[in-house]
Amino acid sequence: MHDLAVQLNNILDSCVAGHLLSETGRRMYFPKGIAAQAAEAGRFAKVQNASVGMAVSDKSPMIIPALHSLAPKLNASDLVEYAPNAGDRRLRTLWKEMLVKKNPNLAGAEISNPTVVAGITNGISQIADLFIDPDDVVILPDLFWGNYRLIFDEKKQASLSTFPIFDGTHFNIDGLEEQLDLHKNKGKAAVLLNFPNNPTGYSPTHDEVREIERIVVGAADSGMHLLVVLDDAYFGLYYEDNVYDQSLFGLFAHNHENILAMKVDGPTKEDFAWGFRIGFVTFGGKGLSAQAYDALENKLLGAVRSSISSSSRPAQSLLIRTFLTPGYEDQKRVLRRQLFERYQTVKGLVRNIPSQAGIRALPFNSGYFMSFANPGKAEQLRTSLLHGRGIGTISIQGDYLRVAYSSVDLSSLPDLYEQIFKAAALNI
Amino acid sequence: MHDLAVQLNNILDSCVAGHLLSETGRRMYFPKGIAAQAAEAGRFAKVQNASVGMAVSDKSPMIIPALHSLAPKLNASDLVEYAPNAGDRRLRTLWKEMLVKKNPNLAGAEISNPTVVAGITNGISQIADLFIDPDDVVILPDLFWGNYRLIFDEKKQASLSTFPIFDGTHFNIDGLEEQLDLHKNKGKAAVLLNFPNNPTGYSPTHDEVREIERIVVGAADSGMHLLVVLDDAYFGLYYEDNVYDQSLFGLFAHNHENILAMKVDGPTKEDFAWGFRIGFVTFGGKGLSAQAYDALENKLLGAVRSSISSSSRPAQSLLIRTFLTPGYEDQKRVLRRQLFERYQTVKGLVRNIPSQAGIRALPFNSGYFMSFANPGKAEQLRTSLLHGRGIGTISIQGDYLRVAYSSVDLSSLPDLYEQIFKAAALNI
Repeated sequence: MHDLAVQLNNILDSCVAGHLLSETGRRMYFPKGIAAQAAEAGRFAKVQNASVGMAVSDKSPMIIPALHSLAPKLNASDLVEYAPNAGDRRLRTLWKEMLVKKNPNLAGAEISNPTVVAGITNGISQIADLFIDPDDVVILPDLFWGNYRLIFDEKKQASLSTFPIFDGTHFNIDGLEEQLDLHKNKGKAAVLLNFPNNPTGYSPTHDEVREIERIVVGAADSGMHLLVVLDDAYFGLYYEDNVYDQSLFGLFAHNHENILAMKVDGPTKEDFAWGFRIGFVTFGGKGLSAQAYDALENKLLGAVRSSISSSSRPAQSLLIRTFLTPGYEDQKRVLRRQLFERYQTVKGLVRNIPSQAGIRALPFNSGYFMSFANPGKAEQLRTSLLHGRGIGTISIQGDYLRVAYSSVDLSSLPDLYEQIFKAAALNI
Repeated sequence: MHDLAVQLNNILDSCVAGHLLSETGRRMYFPKGIAAQAAEAGRFAKVQNASVGMAVSDKSPMIIPALHSLAPKLNASDLVEYAPNAGDRRLRTLWKEMLVKKNPNLAGAEISNPTVVAGITNGISQIADLFIDPDDVVILPDLFWGNYRLIFDEKKQASLSTFPIFDGTHFNIDGLEEQLDLHKNKGKAAVLLNFPNNPTGYSPTHDEVREIERIVVGAADSGMHLLVVLDDAYFGLYYEDNVYDQSLFGLFAHNHENILAMKVDGPTKEDFAWGFRIGFVTFGGKGLSAQAYDALENKLLGAVRSSISSSSRPAQSLLIRTFLTPGYEDQKRVLRRQLFERYQTVKGLVRNIPSQAGIRALPFNSGYFMSFANPGKAEQLRTSLLHGRGIGTISIQGDYLRVAYSSVDLSSLPDLYEQIFKAAALNI
């Protein structure tokens, strides 16, 4: 193992992170190679910088004029230069400021700087590389984003340990507790929480969040080391007053020495920039020293360097400029308002599902989606909707039909749901 | 193992690829989940598409006006919509057309479509996931891009097996042959070739390329299964007439049934778009069926889905528009001409290195860089240049100093090299 990795491990072994690193995570470090030397040169090479593998002319990167003309408000550096491995510093600072503002529950918490990654998928994948070994347990609700299976199960060979997401119309607190109990003897587990949830569009209420916190802290109290991963892809899209409208990261980032929390978020949905592939990974844990945060960031940077090197510069620059534009928050609010109106309409439409449809709407109160339970028939319903009626939906685990009402105009929603009810009635 | 993975393995086990897949590679597949269902909906959902997790209004993705105003020539879809997992089809088609045009040695070869990945690093990382197991052998010259160590050695725990890159002023053909002989009993190996080479700026001559081909084919003839990875990051930047000015991919993509060739390339350097993080992975192997290529692409798509999901859309759209702009090739030629002039100047400057400098220029004829041999003193030389003279360079393996003349203006090159010679003379 490389000396630099050993040094980082020595730091992290004095806190919860040391118990949670995977074998790959233990080997990771950011080398003092080209990237580190180039970063050093960036600071000190005031006369000539012949360190970076770029083509530079008169202190500015060369750029093909046809390319530059497509985004003329960005200078050449902001458009084509390599971004730092951890992301543009301005973007990281802006994101952290907004993150703290959006989450008052972070008050008083020491957390890491957000590290830029190539989207939320990539953030989760980097975390899986650093913290998940074969046969590690990942606890999560049974309705989850399918890519988790590919990342954690197929690629990392971890064991996905699920519990039914709902107990009646509520988040299934007991299910979470049972899973944690079940794996207590292993001494460690990852807990993966995604609210607003994909595919159900459910976020826990204030009361439920208190219970989730109590259960997880209880497991930590009993001696388990817990990696709590918050996939906050749909953060901010909360439509009911009783929904907890902050990230659970703010709770777990500073509430127990046996818990290491990781927030994965990004502008993908928060800023309507799906294809940008920009995400952020932020660490938080009670009592973690500044040195431990640096070590965690360095591990993550090694994982980033060896998989993507850095994240897309034009996407980062466009975001920085957007965030700094006066009126940006208002413009975002206008779009979110449209999603809220769609939500309200859908709520009305599913209030009276014809009984002959034989489908049931799962609880939803946030995000992009709602899902119908249609046990054993969801895939058939999906294909009949698609090929019989030209309507695209997603079937999940054969038992659920996910409807992304976020992608359907308000005026088309009544017809969409009528078609779904009709197709379901014929699909019995 | 998932059924879909087993099906792909059955196809690939009838050709060289089956001998080369890693354990992770054998498990990989592109799931028929959300992404696949959404792709299907994209084709057939002509009435309503409620499949994709985006916010859509009147058939177009919602977009924050402040963001759109920064690249007004791109429509909202081209700016913010998710790109397909394998990349924008127009971009893949354009890149393949250009690839075939740039490499006449591909005439008659059946190769895969290029799959878009998040930069060249990411392409190499995806290949490492799919094909490299712990203790696998990766054969490469001893002067190589440092990130290979992090990817193949630290992360995948493969064994980097190097040979001295030069034999006098020539590429060390015998060194390559000895390495292949050494590992013949293993039955398989990866050969990783990066021309123009980072850090030396060397590309083999026509004669040397013929020898490289002969040696590798000889090893394949003897029964070895070979993964030949061509890292073509600096493709096209050839400055001497005797340099082979095509990718070696064109040789290995259709010359032996025991060889699977993979080309990793991108606009990073070819189009002066370093920070875009767009790359391409293209497969080629003699006798591979269309079905085998599909299976390889599907494996790669699974690896992409589980690590980055897709590559940055704005970067892809900017490239498509640039490639289609009349005059694009000429604009690129103007920039490349500047690099060529810098090369010529540097060639002149290193013709008479003062003997008291105690450094020696390694052969170079292409790319961005040249390197000095300065055994045992290169790191000291680097820091004295940086902190004593404000000049940024890169030290490699403690014995070499890499100079990226690509990033220094023509008029500054004489002073840069004078400073290097002076600092080296004081560093003895």
